[in-house]
Amino acid sequence: MPSADVPVNLDAKFASFDEVWAPRVVGQINDYEVKIAKADGRFVWHTHEGTDEFFLVHKGQLTIEMKGRDDVSLGPGDFYVVPRGVEHCPVAGSGCELLLLEPRGVVNTGDAGGEPMTAEPEAM
Amino acid sequence: MPSADVPVNLDAKFASFDEVWAPRVVGQINDYEVKIAKADGRFVWHTHEGTDEFFLVHKGQLTIEMKGRDDVSLGPGDFYVVPRGVEHCPVAGSGCELLLLEPRGVVNTGDAGGEPMTAEPEAM
Repeated sequence: MPSADVPVNLDAKFASFDEVWAPRVVGQINDYEVKIAKADGRFVWHTHEGTDEFFLVHKGQLTIEMKGRDDVSLGPGDFYVVPRGVEHCPVAGSGCELLLLEPRGVVNTGDAGGEPMTAEPEAM
Repeated sequence: MPSADVPVNLDAKFASFDEVWAPRVVGQINDYEVKIAKADGRFVWHTHEGTDEFFLVHKGQLTIEMKGRDDVSLGPGDFYVVPRGVEHCPVAGSGCELLLLEPRGVVNTGDAGGEPMTAEPEAM
């Protein structure tokens, strides 16, 4: 369980792991979790019925493909909030680093589940 | 009211205003607001009894002084979550740019209120 009262340097946190599509919990805001994830290539199509999902690109490039909406392309310093209920598929360039924000307990693959992409967020 | 389905470039948003200690709402995640603020110099001592407060430094330097805790010094890419109920006073270097996250409706000066620092967050 990450402490809420320690400052966090994002670059240092990203440097501490290599796994992609495996979010790490790096902070908590009330009942929300601040997560970071490395990403590379195509994730899976999924939907979070109960929550919006915040993506902020720290490094690299991320495209979010969505059903019924235009793709959104994000670079460093860009963020996007995928509205709840919108089926989406993140597609990342090499070396992509993301900051995510969601209510505690949200599963990264939403309704899709299954291996190999579903990952229990890991505290660090 | 900012739309939830438009990508946001933080640098462009910061370039669009100059006022300090006047948060702008740039996104929404469920019932939370993503805000940005420019900061320079000393804010006011205040407490948010009902919520944690997330500070991510986009540019510049921010020190968060707290009652009963060591100061926290943050640079670009550093974040800190001030726990609810902890009296704090942000002190910013020149050119400081912050990304904040709080439940909708939180007032920037918390229990302190009053002029000149209390600002109604402005949508953009």
